[in-house]
Amino acid sequence: VIRVPIRLRRALDESYEILIGRGLGPRITVDLRRRRLGRRYVLVTDSHLHARCGEPLRAAFRRRGLVADLISFPAGESSKTRRVRDAIEDGVIALDAGRDTALVALGGGVVGDLVGFVAATFNRGVPYVQIPTTLIGMVDAAIGGKTGINHPAGKNLIGAFHHPSAVYVDVDYLKTLPPRQFTAGLAEVVKCGVIADRRLFEAIEGHPERVLERDPDTMSRIIEACCRIKARVVAEDPRESNRRKILNFGHTIGHALETLSGYRMAHGEAVAIGMVAEARMAGREGLLSVSAADRIAALVARLGLPTAIPPAFDPAAILEVAHRDKKARQGRIAYALPVRIGAMANIAGEYGIPLADSLAAQVLHDLAQVRPSGRRRPFTPAPRLAT
Amino acid sequence: VIRVPIRLRRALDESYEILIGRGLGPRITVDLRRRRLGRRYVLVTDSHLHARCGEPLRAAFRRRGLVADLISFPAGESSKTRRVRDAIEDGVIALDAGRDTALVALGGGVVGDLVGFVAATFNRGVPYVQIPTTLIGMVDAAIGGKTGINHPAGKNLIGAFHHPSAVYVDVDYLKTLPPRQFTAGLAEVVKCGVIADRRLFEAIEGHPERVLERDPDTMSRIIEACCRIKARVVAEDPRESNRRKILNFGHTIGHALETLSGYRMAHGEAVAIGMVAEARMAGREGLLSVSAADRIAALVARLGLPTAIPPAFDPAAILEVAHRDKKARQGRIAYALPVRIGAMANIAGEYGIPLADSLAAQVLHDLAQVRPSGRRRPFTPAPRLAT
Repeated sequence: VIRVPIRLRRALDESYEILIGRGLGPRITVDLRRRRLGRRYVLVTDSHLHARCGEPLRAAFRRRGLVADLISFPAGESSKTRRVRDAIEDGVIALDAGRDTALVALGGGVVGDLVGFVAATFNRGVPYVQIPTTLIGMVDAAIGGKTGINHPAGKNLIGAFHHPSAVYVDVDYLKTLPPRQFTAGLAEVVKCGVIADRRLFEAIEGHPERVLERDPDTMSRIIEACCRIKARVVAEDPRESNRRKILNFGHTIGHALETLSGYRMAHGEAVAIGMVAEARMAGREGLLSVSAADRIAALVARLGLPTAIPPAFDPAAILEVAHRDKKARQGRIAYALPVRIGAMANIAGEYGIPLADSLAAQVLHDLAQVRPSGRRRPFTPAPRLAT
Repeated sequence: VIRVPIRLRRALDESYEILIGRGLGPRITVDLRRRRLGRRYVLVTDSHLHARCGEPLRAAFRRRGLVADLISFPAGESSKTRRVRDAIEDGVIALDAGRDTALVALGGGVVGDLVGFVAATFNRGVPYVQIPTTLIGMVDAAIGGKTGINHPAGKNLIGAFHHPSAVYVDVDYLKTLPPRQFTAGLAEVVKCGVIADRRLFEAIEGHPERVLERDPDTMSRIIEACCRIKARVVAEDPRESNRRKILNFGHTIGHALETLSGYRMAHGEAVAIGMVAEARMAGREGLLSVSAADRIAALVARLGLPTAIPPAFDPAAILEVAHRDKKARQGRIAYALPVRIGAMANIAGEYGIPLADSLAAQVLHDLAQVRPSGRRRPFTPAPRLAT
């Protein structure tokens, strides 16, 4: 047998910057002109944002002398499909754009995931930048390089790691964000506090009204704090081999709920319930104090997010979906669990903590007994949770 | 404006080995058992190879205690589509395979490109190994990490760089390769000689009959030589930013012919004509001697490969498609051109040599005047080429 080695060692630098500010349009175009990411830009957004945000941004690009086109697709998580991905690719190709093109993802997490994935595989990879317009995009989805689409068998089953070349967070986009989307984004903010930043958690706990009023200075500081946490965690573990798993707090149960709802439940809403559930599990396992779990549930509720599992969702079904999502690990489902507000459990160096299904099922069962909050209004008091 | 840097510098090692030998089955399974690439394996092949090669390999995997399934798709370049890619993904998912899965691409270039691409994006990337069964796969397609599918607007427009974890070249697969496929593979062998290995070129020139008889020792040595060239070029330039372009000798015109033929022309046949055309262009440009261009054309013909452009192909149409393929570069098409047998042109450090369309069109016009060789027989004498 003959052996021919192929040596492929190299230093890879995928570093980039998140810029956070207000009225960023002019700065974005100056930045892109200087950096020459592409000879031309294709802005991709969704149907809700096309006229209101897409066209003004395209005009700003063109005023600065950048070659820019704009395409869009139907808004919503239900667009994270092969069909819509293919349509975006076809749209880019129909513009006669080649490998000298950079894509611009303008929108929420769905736009970022789809456009990032198209950028990852168009001509075997072209650059892209993220301009998140939703809170969830600004604090989470746009950062970290995870891109992809859903498959009937599970979320993000098809995708790629492809880091953006820049993330531009224009806080002004929050002003016109629909209430339900804004609130959903707060779930990821609370998550950041729980997993890594007690002061962020307490700042929101102390003045939730400033957050709910979307005060721009408050929001800028909150977004910066979340970006710094995500930046640190992603830098430490770009491919999610271990520490990055802490970002999944609330997401194991959250994803399962989202899947079972047929994506009618917003991601942030599902994560909110997931955080309450997983904090309770951490409590039962003796990792987290009951009072800390109570505080998490109370803040989630105070921000207008759901905390109870709708009665239609059977605990066994939720765990079955969670098992399917995590099928890589045989046996127990591993969760990212807090040990206190601001710190995550790490057992023998491992951030994925396996729990018995019986414990998880009991917590889910209890959370389903809570009076459902029905059509959620902001400022509803926290429902009393069975513990 | 607040700036949050995301630092993503890391050392990446994507090195792997090509193993070349006969009767490799047992060795492959031992190797995989030792390396534990995945907890389970999905073998993917095409309809022609399913029973003859796929089932025996699956049996070999299972005998060794590896968890292995086998799926297949219709053979042929026309399968390099989104539809077939989606079907492979669905097939893998239907097996309940998760991110602990490694894929095995068993087949020619089409299988490798498709399976490599599915591996690149399934669960944001899983490992895969290549087991090429065609000559073109053994000397070219399976090595280098280029994966992808075709789009009506162009070849490989959607794809990814995703290196295999190993390439296993079992020369025994050549025994039963259909003659047209074997011959097509010889085009890439000749290419390797022209771009980087005068001795390989002269060895084939000296004893073409040993090659055409598929003598196993001769073929092992030829494949090894080609793999070493490709390994060197890919290691120097994994993302095709410059030097790797030399691998495109014959491919600029070749791809255009392939596209215009609706992929009815085999890749190797198109590359054979492309090499003759591009060698003539290098001659006209004064980069290559006319005698060297003659030798290239004569060897291509001696191996049973076509050298003339079928009359249906209009030079202007060929160049239009080539412009579209290379649309990243404005203006002139850049070609990879030999300066002598075994060495490629490099002008001011750049391996893509721009040529005027008028010169290219004249060469293509002349090559279309050559008496078409019709249904090609092996051992036809080289047609006399107008120069």
